[in-house]
Amino acid sequence: MEVPPPLVLKRALFVPSKTLMGPGPSNCSQRVLEAMSNPVLGHMHPECLQIMDEVKEGIKYIFQTLNDATMCISGAGHSGMEAALCNLIEDDDVVLMGITGVWGHRAADMARRYGADVRYVEASFGRALTLEEIRFAFDTHKPRVFFVTQGDSSTGILQRHISEIGELCRLHDCFLVVDVVASLGGTHFLMDEWKVDVAYTGSQKSLGGPAGLTPISFSKRALTHIRQRKSKPKVYYFDILLIGQYWGCYGTPRSYHHTISSTLLYGLREALAHFCAMGLKKVVQRHQECSNRLQLGIEELGLEMFVQHEPDRLPTVNTIKVPFGVDWKKVADYAMRKYNLEISGGLGPTVEHVFRIGLMGENATLEKVDMVLSILNEAIQSIKLRAVKAERSKI
Amino acid sequence: MEVPPPLVLKRALFVPSKTLMGPGPSNCSQRVLEAMSNPVLGHMHPECLQIMDEVKEGIKYIFQTLNDATMCISGAGHSGMEAALCNLIEDDDVVLMGITGVWGHRAADMARRYGADVRYVEASFGRALTLEEIRFAFDTHKPRVFFVTQGDSSTGILQRHISEIGELCRLHDCFLVVDVVASLGGTHFLMDEWKVDVAYTGSQKSLGGPAGLTPISFSKRALTHIRQRKSKPKVYYFDILLIGQYWGCYGTPRSYHHTISSTLLYGLREALAHFCAMGLKKVVQRHQECSNRLQLGIEELGLEMFVQHEPDRLPTVNTIKVPFGVDWKKVADYAMRKYNLEISGGLGPTVEHVFRIGLMGENATLEKVDMVLSILNEAIQSIKLRAVKAERSKI
Repeated sequence: MEVPPPLVLKRALFVPSKTLMGPGPSNCSQRVLEAMSNPVLGHMHPECLQIMDEVKEGIKYIFQTLNDATMCISGAGHSGMEAALCNLIEDDDVVLMGITGVWGHRAADMARRYGADVRYVEASFGRALTLEEIRFAFDTHKPRVFFVTQGDSSTGILQRHISEIGELCRLHDCFLVVDVVASLGGTHFLMDEWKVDVAYTGSQKSLGGPAGLTPISFSKRALTHIRQRKSKPKVYYFDILLIGQYWGCYGTPRSYHHTISSTLLYGLREALAHFCAMGLKKVVQRHQECSNRLQLGIEELGLEMFVQHEPDRLPTVNTIKVPFGVDWKKVADYAMRKYNLEISGGLGPTVEHVFRIGLMGENATLEKVDMVLSILNEAIQSIKLRAVKAERSKI
Repeated sequence: MEVPPPLVLKRALFVPSKTLMGPGPSNCSQRVLEAMSNPVLGHMHPECLQIMDEVKEGIKYIFQTLNDATMCISGAGHSGMEAALCNLIEDDDVVLMGITGVWGHRAADMARRYGADVRYVEASFGRALTLEEIRFAFDTHKPRVFFVTQGDSSTGILQRHISEIGELCRLHDCFLVVDVVASLGGTHFLMDEWKVDVAYTGSQKSLGGPAGLTPISFSKRALTHIRQRKSKPKVYYFDILLIGQYWGCYGTPRSYHHTISSTLLYGLREALAHFCAMGLKKVVQRHQECSNRLQLGIEELGLEMFVQHEPDRLPTVNTIKVPFGVDWKKVADYAMRKYNLEISGGLGPTVEHVFRIGLMGENATLEKVDMVLSILNEAIQSIKLRAVKAERSKI
């Protein structure tokens, strides 16, 4: 038996240009895209290590941290979640999952595979967790690790009070893992000041980098704990003592751990450089302004935000209730077909209930907000009209 | 405390152009590099899924397999090793590691973390494993999984007789994992015909793609076993039942597992398209011809190959003994400084003993062979001369 070469690969590669205003990835700038066509470098070449150092400094800035153990995991955002849990958890550790959407459940799936005893504290539907709920859960479960999502892209919920949660974790000798995949750049995050033990973010969201490298940082306290583990972390690929040695985090000679993608490093480096040049505060302010304008526009269109309590709204991924009788899928298809614009539907608890509109990085501009509002309105009206016509034709 | 934006990110990105003739990554073609500056796509967009389908067909061709469970892991080559072991191994399974260099030890580290009872069968120094050695080890250890590297890039050893090993594994109800990271494209590999249960390769070697996506395939037999596991695989990120569902492998609706890098997909797709257009047999033949010419040239220079037994030599990563009294590092530095050419030193058991010269993908041409031979010779002569002068100046 011989497997022939596939005919599909004789066709030319075709990649359409779209405006990505779903929950991510967001668009990369031309600067980032062009950087990725640079020649590849060896994973131990000094020029590659230099770029890794620059990326590391950029991550420290965007996380507002001085942690030595700051690096990237070579994988999607989910690999950051894996690395956070894999390094902290030992068998039978109680891990408390804060639930404001799907991501706490995803983390629970991972943690259970690592042998954790998983417990939950769940927010009311469409709300962030309150400090009272968290305090009660701490007293009940006495967790070793607490996981919470700062910005839950499945519901558009922003979890505030991370600083108070950080204090609470210290009081209870618990490690705090904060998923800032969807929130970073769109809202304030001060890793060190808020006493966060592990944070990781998505490169392809507000940062405007390519997917595939995940910035992550571990506090000194977490690192000390990891160095004193009874057993090795269960996954070599996510072992941050080894990865950090490759990234030159610990003052020891760098050693090979895996072959990093130099291509993605170039893209992430350029995204971080752009982000740093704009300045963290300004970036956050811009994202917030865009979301404010979107929320105002949504009201003006007679639509309603999914998250009722305004301060609980995540500015980067905005969830809007699908109007009664409208098929969200048809609206999204209309926007994509006519304008190459991505508007997304819900995920998990919000499936079929909401539209998700991402305002991140390149797409967090007032012009884009106006554009997406106008297209959303046109699409909904058009779908409603079609539905009315279809009804009439039945009569 | 406020962390300021790093000054290093104000400098422009600088990426030198090098000829990468170490053990990998190898150079990407202009076609591959240019593809990676295409706009990013959403991970569930039909155009992205279409490219994934095309990549999947390309992988089936290069592995010569009809396995449904053929996909990529979103990570470095090591993530392929992780996924192979993570999905097959349950607690206390006996896993036999074939050792011809460092990679069996790396796999052992991973397997032990997954709870395996790891045993070894080690080849004589500078030799491949013999079938007798493997048979004896099977009788002694009765393994559930046997891991072997077809091409060990740390020693330049080619493990032949994979077909016979496949038969042996079936006889012993054992799963065969073959690491073809460094060998694929440089030597024949027939996954189905040879009854291999799991194979994975590096994208950045003979394929000429970017690092960061790792092609992998699981046999029907392995897949059935994984479906019947007593416990879930220990890592969500490497769970091939979930990843394969995202890749559309099982005839069920595709569902989100992680955010794949569309950038890397473009690069890999173009690399596979080029590879398929050339044809597997011709590619293998070309790599072998290049290695033959290199070996001849090495002899003519009065140097010696590290692997004594000619049929055990891997054509893609060629190991050459460092001549007595010569510092390999100075030779490598000379080639890099003067010609931007990467010639590598040894790894693990071959550190300081060998040069490693990669002839892979774009760099597997007779012209490049002649070039690397000429530069290697010039570098060695120059370093020898310098050493003589230094000696004389002492007198």
